[in-house]
Amino acid sequence: MPFVHSRTIRLADTDAAGVVFFARTYALCHEAYEEALAQAGMDLKGFLGSDDLIIPIAKSSAEYLRPLHCGDRVAISVKPSLLTPHSFAVDYEITRLGRPDKLAARVRTEHVASSLAKRERLKLPPSLVAWIQTG
Amino acid sequence: MPFVHSRTIRLADTDAAGVVFFARTYALCHEAYEEALAQAGMDLKGFLGSDDLIIPIAKSSAEYLRPLHCGDRVAISVKPSLLTPHSFAVDYEITRLGRPDKLAARVRTEHVASSLAKRERLKLPPSLVAWIQTG
Amino acid sequence: MPFVHSRTIRLADTDAAGVVFFARTYALCHEAYEEALAQAGMDLKGFLGSDDLIIPIAKSSAEYLRPLHCGDRVAISVKPSLLTPHSFAVDYEITRLGRPDKLAARVRTEHVASSLAKRERLKLPPSLVAWIQTG
Amino acid sequence: MPFVHSRTIRLADTDAAGVVFFARTYALCHEAYEEALAQAGMDLKGFLGSDDLIIPIAKSSAEYLRPLHCGDRVAISVKPSLLTPHSFAVDYEITRLGRPDKLAARVRTEHVASSLAKRERLKLPPSLVAWIQTG
Repeated sequence: MPFVHSRTIRLADTDAAGVVFFARTYALCHEAYEEALAQAGMDLKGFLGSDDLIIPIAKSSAEYLRPLHCGDRVAISVKPSLLTPHSFAVDYEITRLGRPDKLAARVRTEHVASSLAKRERLKLPPSLVAWIQTG
Repeated sequence: MPFVHSRTIRLADTDAAGVVFFARTYALCHEAYEEALAQAGMDLKGFLGSDDLIIPIAKSSAEYLRPLHCGDRVAISVKPSLLTPHSFAVDYEITRLGRPDKLAARVRTEHVASSLAKRERLKLPPSLVAWIQTG
Repeated sequence: MPFVHSRTIRLADTDAAGVVFFARTYALCHEAYEEALAQAGMDLKGFLGSDDLIIPIAKSSAEYLRPLHCGDRVAISVKPSLLTPHSFAVDYEITRLGRPDKLAARVRTEHVASSLAKRERLKLPPSLVAWIQTG
Repeated sequence: MPFVHSRTIRLADTDAAGVVFFARTYALCHEAYEEALAQAGMDLKGFLGSDDLIIPIAKSSAEYLRPLHCGDRVAISVKPSLLTPHSFAVDYEITRLGRPDKLAARVRTEHVASSLAKRERLKLPPSLVAWIQTG
């Protein structure tokens, strides 16, 4: 069972077309990713340059199936998968909750572990690999 | 007892200074306001131009006491008060949860009910006045 | 020659990792798209529900090659292409200006014209097709 | 004559009420502040923790006079003033350009120089004081 993050769409997520701004969809998914890491006992702060390891996003993509409006309740599933010893992907599905639930977007991010100083690839830390393998 | 909205600070809330971007603090408070309205059975969508009544923010202000970092847990209290038959204020306190809790920011928004068509002030709807008077 | 939008990276574009937040990269490209349309005499407001035609983004993707920092000058090229009579893509390249210039990201958005009322595909308006064919 | 930053309102600046999200108004002003510093030969990156000096915003306030829509052209004036040897304010006016121009918002930010390590107030750097005194 993938991790699921529940969330209400806020006014700040929307644009003048009345729906969630397409770029903001990625921020919603990154929230879910941060929450999944926190639940697994990891701390994003630890990946933010406190030491030499950084894990930036190398690629992202999204498919928008249905608009999301301010006040909508959504559930965002988070499914990580290992790509190489240095990289992993996360696949997200955003479901708009209702009667019935409707799939609203599919999103994917790819992350690569790097050395901040040497700008070369690093192995993913074991705690992160363990989390990815639960996906 | 004021309404309290709990929230984790996300990477998207922060800036390159490593803390929540000052403008973003207002968005956190507006989230708490939207949540408070929803809990009181009101729907912000109803105030978004579906009819002639709009309730835009006329003023806002904030005092920043402590920085907030990605991963911090915060509690945002929401305290509305009636200003005139056409307007109300909401006072927010953002508390960073920890041992001990610390007050991180005080924020205020002022809202004025207006007619979209005639651009003149309107009386606040009774359901909103009822919520404000719980503040 | 594609349209190019120049821009400085702002603090609000960045996150606590010290660089542009990955989701924000899409917003930078959408700015360039809006500017390209304006230069071609079109008005995004005209596509925002003022009538039945809407042109939402159906897909987006990005490849992040280099980090962008607060204060960096970037040039964003905008290259539209027709996909079907109802849809088009826009390909963007974000170049970090310097000595030498460096390609920082490649981004793509796909847009589909739809009827707001009937939720079915519509033909792209001729003015938009004319702009796409300059790409 | 104060520094003036010109800008087009973008879709990403707006919300589902069809106008600029109130919190985003502060980000527009901060852009103008960054641009004013850059024009004066200063670099915001230099104030982002590269050494012990930080200059966070301690207070902000805004008065919203007219809504701003996607595509609107605005001019943002930036007027700094010294408050104490450790602090300064910046007053902004956002004017919506048209026939005639209309004042859309008045915004103010207050900034206090601090030591990152000792969390005590520091004197403002002379280059910044020189810029403030041009206001």
